[in-house]
Amino acid sequence: MYTQIELSRTGASGRVAVITLNRPDKLNALTKVMEAELRRAMEEVDGDDAVRVVVLTGAGRGFCAGMDIDELEILPPGDIRAAQWMRPFDMNRRPDYQTRYGYFPAVRKPVICAINGAAAGLGLVFALYSDIRFASDRAAFSTAFAKRGLIAEHGIAWMLPRVVGPGHAADLLYSARKVSAAEALQMGLVNRLFEADSLMAETLRYADDLAENVSPRSIRVIKDQLWEVPFQDLAQATRTANEAMYESIQSEDFTEGVAHFVERRAARFTGR
Amino acid sequence: MYTQIELSRTGASGRVAVITLNRPDKLNALTKVMEAELRRAMEEVDGDDAVRVVVLTGAGRGFCAGMDIDELEILPPGDIRAAQWMRPFDMNRRPDYQTRYGYFPAVRKPVICAINGAAAGLGLVFALYSDIRFASDRAAFSTAFAKRGLIAEHGIAWMLPRVVGPGHAADLLYSARKVSAAEALQMGLVNRLFEADSLMAETLRYADDLAENVSPRSIRVIKDQLWEVPFQDLAQATRTANEAMYESIQSEDFTEGVAHFVERRAARFTGR
Amino acid sequence: MYTQIELSRTGASGRVAVITLNRPDKLNALTKVMEAELRRAMEEVDGDDAVRVVVLTGAGRGFCAGMDIDELEILPPGDIRAAQWMRPFDMNRRPDYQTRYGYFPAVRKPVICAINGAAAGLGLVFALYSDIRFASDRAAFSTAFAKRGLIAEHGIAWMLPRVVGPGHAADLLYSARKVSAAEALQMGLVNRLFEADSLMAETLRYADDLAENVSPRSIRVIKDQLWEVPFQDLAQATRTANEAMYESIQSEDFTEGVAHFVERRAARFTGR
Repeated sequence: MYTQIELSRTGASGRVAVITLNRPDKLNALTKVMEAELRRAMEEVDGDDAVRVVVLTGAGRGFCAGMDIDELEILPPGDIRAAQWMRPFDMNRRPDYQTRYGYFPAVRKPVICAINGAAAGLGLVFALYSDIRFASDRAAFSTAFAKRGLIAEHGIAWMLPRVVGPGHAADLLYSARKVSAAEALQMGLVNRLFEADSLMAETLRYADDLAENVSPRSIRVIKDQLWEVPFQDLAQATRTANEAMYESIQSEDFTEGVAHFVERRAARFTGR
Repeated sequence: MYTQIELSRTGASGRVAVITLNRPDKLNALTKVMEAELRRAMEEVDGDDAVRVVVLTGAGRGFCAGMDIDELEILPPGDIRAAQWMRPFDMNRRPDYQTRYGYFPAVRKPVICAINGAAAGLGLVFALYSDIRFASDRAAFSTAFAKRGLIAEHGIAWMLPRVVGPGHAADLLYSARKVSAAEALQMGLVNRLFEADSLMAETLRYADDLAENVSPRSIRVIKDQLWEVPFQDLAQATRTANEAMYESIQSEDFTEGVAHFVERRAARFTGR
Repeated sequence: MYTQIELSRTGASGRVAVITLNRPDKLNALTKVMEAELRRAMEEVDGDDAVRVVVLTGAGRGFCAGMDIDELEILPPGDIRAAQWMRPFDMNRRPDYQTRYGYFPAVRKPVICAINGAAAGLGLVFALYSDIRFASDRAAFSTAFAKRGLIAEHGIAWMLPRVVGPGHAADLLYSARKVSAAEALQMGLVNRLFEADSLMAETLRYADDLAENVSPRSIRVIKDQLWEVPFQDLAQATRTANEAMYESIQSEDFTEGVAHFVERRAARFTGR
């Protein structure tokens, strides 16, 4: 069903979906096929009630080297503008998150990016549209665009300063230099580093903790809140939160959330 | 006058007000009584010209464990929506800072949060609405909400990414995990850490330096500026600053600010 | 031609302009003459096609101690309001970047600030309006304003929280305290520290890498993007990027950007 990615389920109850970019001999450089398959896989896990958390990673020693240079060279310029806007990922989400490479925020589950190696160009864009970024201590990062004569593509000019601040964003985007994992951590580009050998085990342990011990309903609502706040003032955000709190208190997950705490036992959330 | 908090004055000239959440056997978990007393204390110090700086801390080994679970369980759901908006804290402040738990930015003095121990749920919300966060190296932090089946309450979805960035905010809000003081510092969640034994002494030393050596007029205006900028473009913020600068140069505190510098002596600001 | 600053060219092909504030006996405190000369130098390098990167630094042991106190004392208050808005630096840029001290974002080349010593008041403002901040490990920072009875001037209340977050911004602006280079790095106030002796060599090495190995066209467009995003939603930023990408793919620099990569040789960008 998939030829350039892999989709698997793992975790104690099979609630963690792992999407693996899978062209290891090309450092998982993006092709149109891979792009379409990644989108289809995200739609699949978004619609699958059994999946609570999504992990995105790469096969082999790279994460994603960006657009495959072979596809880049032959790309007809006329196509580029036309292909920017696809059909909506989710009609209920704002247009900001309906773009060609920027739809991860519309996935109704947390997307954790496990950056196992080089993340360049679009590879870095994918990492930035993920909710949380874990990386191998051997990972490396580059915006790449300015060394190709290109610009800050697909919303990275908007996303990157939010994550690392405007000074580091300028450094990364102007120089297009290669940044080590240690420097990426210091800038705040990634949440945490792990040794290369333990990255996937640690990421899956974290993902499974979300899947088993936290209310999926809570996470779904909070993800919406987090990706809405850049477009809200605080009064609006507080009003949204108050309404969502009112709904949450009538939910099964709230009843369970108090019960497992009072009874000092593991939670059994249903997501309702 | 207060039963679940304490309010005291300290500092070289008694200009530092210390508000202590005071239910140490419950890790200072919030009750309706404590909530109302905290609000009343903030109104009291806001209106007291002798007070220049406010420190908020907790008694015993916790800072604030969030809403008391006993009050949470019996809270009638209908009350929640109704109780979100209280009377304005200060009619001159924007509605963003007139909410039930988000009024610290409307206090016309700096609020320094001295996080002496666990800060969870609403405890973390209070810390985020403070201007500056100092913490004990034994403090611990948790958003808590998602493990209770709740959502990102009272504006924390808006505040937290501003302080720690969107990646750490997602980690903290989705996982509701316990974060150590060292990790909180690394994320930028707190300004500085101190050894548990010296937290209050160091916080009071800092607070008293603000109270004695800096123009209270300057701080009052700058606090307004800092909490307005999220809703301004840079041109507006610059225009506001230019007007405020024009006013400041006609103030007593400006005259004194130049005089004590030229005369190489300690400042004696009046706040006028 | 210049009396209180110096303007020179350096780098492998003379593409790096260095502007040096040059009143070392006064820690390069700002006068009206220096202010006008700095502006004129920025206009000169902005219009000079041979210049690709701008470095701003200070002569001697300070970077810029802020407004010269002698000029401050005698400044007629009436002048202040009138003098805030100058003629536009560049008619194509938004008004946010046409202000008296906030026009660096309108310079169509990256401005790298090499903070060689004390940066206080307006000195810190200049650093914040630069794209990238490198500092000597002996540099020191202070907002200074609140100890003079002044306020957060010239947009610093808007800029500073974007760079260091709201908690550190409050600390720096309320206390007006002196912050060490190490602490500035930890806050994110500067991109990187270098030993005092190597600051200029390292800054020029970085600047020359931008000038020689990166497309000037890419950097020019990306600088526009980065300074526009605070005023855009993500959908707008993505649309802007898509249009800019479409233009870039028809540029000489894109052709060269792919060619030098495929041919594994150094780039020879023209900026067209």
